[in-house]
Amino acid sequence: MSSIIQAGFLQTHPEFGAVAANRTQAKFLWGERTADLLVLPELFNTGYQFRSLAEAQNLSEPIPDGPTTEFLIDWARASGMVIVAGLAEREGDTLYNSAVIVGPRGYIGKFRKAHIFDTEIQFFQPGNLPFTVFDAGFAKIGIMICFDWRFPETARTLALQGADVIAHPANLVLPDCPQAMITRCLENRVFAVTADRVGTEQRLPEESLKFIGQSQAVDPDGTVLVRASEDREEAQGVALDLDKARNKKINGHNDLFADRREDLYRIGGKG
Amino acid sequence: MSSIIQAGFLQTHPEFGAVAANRTQAKFLWGERTADLLVLPELFNTGYQFRSLAEAQNLSEPIPDGPTTEFLIDWARASGMVIVAGLAEREGDTLYNSAVIVGPRGYIGKFRKAHIFDTEIQFFQPGNLPFTVFDAGFAKIGIMICFDWRFPETARTLALQGADVIAHPANLVLPDCPQAMITRCLENRVFAVTADRVGTEQRLPEESLKFIGQSQAVDPDGTVLVRASEDREEAQGVALDLDKARNKKINGHNDLFADRREDLYRIGGKG
Repeated sequence: MSSIIQAGFLQTHPEFGAVAANRTQAKFLWGERTADLLVLPELFNTGYQFRSLAEAQNLSEPIPDGPTTEFLIDWARASGMVIVAGLAEREGDTLYNSAVIVGPRGYIGKFRKAHIFDTEIQFFQPGNLPFTVFDAGFAKIGIMICFDWRFPETARTLALQGADVIAHPANLVLPDCPQAMITRCLENRVFAVTADRVGTEQRLPEESLKFIGQSQAVDPDGTVLVRASEDREEAQGVALDLDKARNKKINGHNDLFADRREDLYRIGGKG
Repeated sequence: MSSIIQAGFLQTHPEFGAVAANRTQAKFLWGERTADLLVLPELFNTGYQFRSLAEAQNLSEPIPDGPTTEFLIDWARASGMVIVAGLAEREGDTLYNSAVIVGPRGYIGKFRKAHIFDTEIQFFQPGNLPFTVFDAGFAKIGIMICFDWRFPETARTLALQGADVIAHPANLVLPDCPQAMITRCLENRVFAVTADRVGTEQRLPEESLKFIGQSQAVDPDGTVLVRASEDREEAQGVALDLDKARNKKINGHNDLFADRREDLYRIGGKG
């Protein structure tokens, strides 16, 4: 079996609260392209800047039994793609900043953002699910969401569990992540596909948020295969040779996983 | 007490095997500058590309009871600086790619490179000392050597132990490290001072090594405070406000250490 897959991302500009329209626009933006794996931004259907907990609750959905997950499953069935997309999850009265992974055969799983950024804590609880690698058949896919990038243990945990590709829905407002994801790929020899959004939200008088775009795919050598603009909606696709991520050797003597010195690390994570 | 210190690095071009001359040239290059902390490259006194184990043994020294450590202690005493420098260490018949830290009051400690790069394994054993933060009074200083950068657990372990500054002697031949050190600083909110060398060594017919220079100091926000050239000997100094490294908050809600999700990390390091 070939180890080469086609991955894509959507860089969207959602209209806050226009959930059905944002779903439709995402699908329209992708059009008739084909891919094995498609990654959409964090909170792709709602937008980012909630004004109140009530508003966040109102725009959140159960996963998998909500309309956005159903929409994504229908899209995956019709297109044959595996889709990873960020949306606000409601479980009882508790909200999570989550991502769902679905495929042609339906629901695969979900992840809840583990490291909540700034004022999001007013709406979302920190994720309570383990970092999980989902087997999509053609690839093992790890998921992390936006600010999870800042903590090296996130990508490390996914890579050590065998992730070939890290699907990374994001709503980036700080400038550092696109460059730092190169380090994440270099240190783990994994692919990463970051799907970010563009545009500005100012739904609160004291806070204007400009999203930086620059969605990208990076390979295990730290090469940026494709990087999107800072300000336009875009759909991009790129071929990934997964064998590169399955070989942790970087020369005749070094294997980035075999060379780890767990005997010396004091980082508090469980083995 | 002010939290602002002066840190410096030397970017050298050693002549292979000319140990005494390389020591003298390093001191000459620094001249009468002043600093609290000065970082020198990896293997600053010997050069990098050993032809044989016998040659490496011959150029290695005990630490602290060797002439290069003695030279550095004399220099530290005369100048009032704390100096971190890389040199080949011999303990019995075993060699380590080590760094020593000395100050005005003499020997402080040493570190042995934990992650050995490529053909170095023909000469050096992987380090068997814990990642250690040395208290220099004015700052807590962690040490890592060159390729240790590639493993996020290295800087993480040092930062979690309270390092304000990571002193990073290096002999870089691959292009990735200067940019990746920005991520190391961002994810840990520490300062890092990388002292690299320049020049080319081809002492083996099959291998020409070009060192990339670009020694640098990076702050906890990921700002490159100073970066040296790719090809010239340089001495640089920069002020570091250590309070920036002692505050892990990045906004009103996030503290990069308090927000760590040790309950979710599966990275095999001991707590």
